[in-house]
Amino acid sequence: MNIKPLADRVVVKMVESEETTKSGIVLPGSAKEKPQIAEVVAVGPGTVQDGKEVKMEVKVGDKVIISKYSGTEVKFNNEEYTILKQGDILAIVE
Amino acid sequence: MNIKPLADRVVVKMVESEETTKSGIVLPGSAKEKPQIAEVVAVGPGTVQDGKEVKMEVKVGDKVIISKYSGTEVKFNNEEYTILKQGDILAIVE
Amino acid sequence: MNIKPLADRVVVKMVESEETTKSGIVLPGSAKEKPQIAEVVAVGPGTVQDGKEVKMEVKVGDKVIISKYSGTEVKFNNEEYTILKQGDILAIVE
Amino acid sequence: MNIKPLADRVVVKMVESEETTKSGIVLPGSAKEKPQIAEVVAVGPGTVQDGKEVKMEVKVGDKVIISKYSGTEVKFNNEEYTILKQGDILAIVE
Amino acid sequence: MNIKPLADRVVVKMVESEETTKSGIVLPGSAKEKPQIAEVVAVGPGTVQDGKEVKMEVKVGDKVIISKYSGTEVKFNNEEYTILKQGDILAIVE
Amino acid sequence: MNIKPLADRVVVKMVESEETTKSGIVLPGSAKEKPQIAEVVAVGPGTVQDGKEVKMEVKVGDKVIISKYSGTEVKFNNEEYTILKQGDILAIVE
Amino acid sequence: MNIKPLADRVVVKMVESEETTKSGIVLPGSAKEKPQIAEVVAVGPGTVQDGKEVKMEVKVGDKVIISKYSGTEVKFNNEEYTILKQGDILAIVE
Repeated sequence: MNIKPLADRVVVKMVESEETTKSGIVLPGSAKEKPQIAEVVAVGPGTVQDGKEVKMEVKVGDKVIISKYSGTEVKFNNEEYTILKQGDILAIVE
Repeated sequence: MNIKPLADRVVVKMVESEETTKSGIVLPGSAKEKPQIAEVVAVGPGTVQDGKEVKMEVKVGDKVIISKYSGTEVKFNNEEYTILKQGDILAIVE
Repeated sequence: MNIKPLADRVVVKMVESEETTKSGIVLPGSAKEKPQIAEVVAVGPGTVQDGKEVKMEVKVGDKVIISKYSGTEVKFNNEEYTILKQGDILAIVE
Repeated sequence: MNIKPLADRVVVKMVESEETTKSGIVLPGSAKEKPQIAEVVAVGPGTVQDGKEVKMEVKVGDKVIISKYSGTEVKFNNEEYTILKQGDILAIVE
Repeated sequence: MNIKPLADRVVVKMVESEETTKSGIVLPGSAKEKPQIAEVVAVGPGTVQDGKEVKMEVKVGDKVIISKYSGTEVKFNNEEYTILKQGDILAIVE
Repeated sequence: MNIKPLADRVVVKMVESEETTKSGIVLPGSAKEKPQIAEVVAVGPGTVQDGKEVKMEVKVGDKVIISKYSGTEVKFNNEEYTILKQGDILAIVE
Repeated sequence: MNIKPLADRVVVKMVESEETTKSGIVLPGSAKEKPQIAEVVAVGPGTVQDGKEVKMEVKVGDKVIISKYSGTEVKFNNEEYTILKQGDILAIVE
């Protein structure tokens, strides 16, 4: 199966990362805050809003920063994704 | 009887699915979260919003992902449907 | 007396229906949820919104589905009506 | 004294009516719900909204249906009036 | 000192009035509801909103009806004034 | 250091004033309500909003009346300022 | 790694400063209010809003004043940043 987001929506998958705290302790995924870096897995075709074309500026594979609370979480093929509008992506990480 | 949605509305029917959890237990429909995948059963004629034409991009039979909380549930011929605007459909599943 | 709705408003009368539950019990009107199917009894002349003409697409006698919470209930000649905007009508039932 | 509403506002006076309930009991004014039928006593000159002219379609003497909660109640010469925008008038009763 | 309101704002001073209730009792100012009739003491130059000119239609000395809750109360030279937008003035009293 | 407000923002400094109540008692600054008269100390370059130019109509040194709750308080060089949009200035005092 | 903000967003890093209170006591960073002065570390390409181009007027290295509550905090490479829209920057400090 395959997800095709509509309009200016983007499907992302949160990136879980092991991480070392300042004191040197490694936190497993479940003990951390929900991660804010996500990988783009599908991009919609763009849309028109207020009479202006919204072009898609992210592409599949981009690492992006998103707010913890933006978008809608969906379960699909036993995996969790977040579908959000491109305008809710804060930044691309390179 | 037949439902004809107005403007840019779409009538969908939630898809109930048996599903295996990661631990291998099969959950019957009633014990799960409300499903988020739905099948399109009727599509409105489109509308004009903010002076721009809204064309319908989904068609009857499409499987779509919708947010748990979008749209209005209606009972019709003893079946439950959700009527929502196309803009509240997050993605098409293929 | 006669009701003439203004702008893009529509006057509807809720349709009360006896109905058989899945277990076969007939529920009288008072024990059920408020019905969501209504009949159009008067239609306004249409309006202009955001610089675009809103044409009326429902006509007197149409059966329509409306959300339980939309519109304003009014008592008139000892009958209850709901006055709502055409945009709050979800679908026409045929 | 005289009230001249500004823009697309209308001044109405609620119509109190004795009324017979279905069981045949006459309710005096104070025991009933606030009436929803009102008579137009003054009409503003119209206005421009979102770049479109709003023409006045009600006139002094019209009986209109208004929502219980719309407009602002004012006391003037020891009488109570409601000042509301024409767009909040639901229908004209003829 | 002198107050010059900006844009489409108007400065008014509430009119306190002795008033006879229906039963004939005169209520002193402090026992009454906050008055809703005000006198215009200063008028702004007008403004442009949504690309349309907002002209001032009230003038200094006009008696106007305002909602109890609109505008901002300011103390100035030990007097209380209300500064509100012209669009919040409901009607002119003549 | 120097503050340069962006767009149509204005930096003001609240004016503390000793003031005599009607009964003749002088209230020191801390026992009074927060003052509503402020002096403009910096003015932004103006902006474009809804396709219309917003010109700055206040200048450094103007005494203005502002609502108690508008703008953002900032501490800067151990002094407190309020940064607000010109549209939140109610009037100029001369 | 590098952060590239989208549209009219700006990435800033709050400036922590030792500061002497009026009574002369030096407060360490953790005992103070969250600082409101930030340094710009990345600037987006600008955007189009309501049919008007939004040009970026801040540049990397600028010291800016931001409201305590605007923007989204992100952790990135073990450092905390705030990503906000240029329109939420109140002023530039020089």
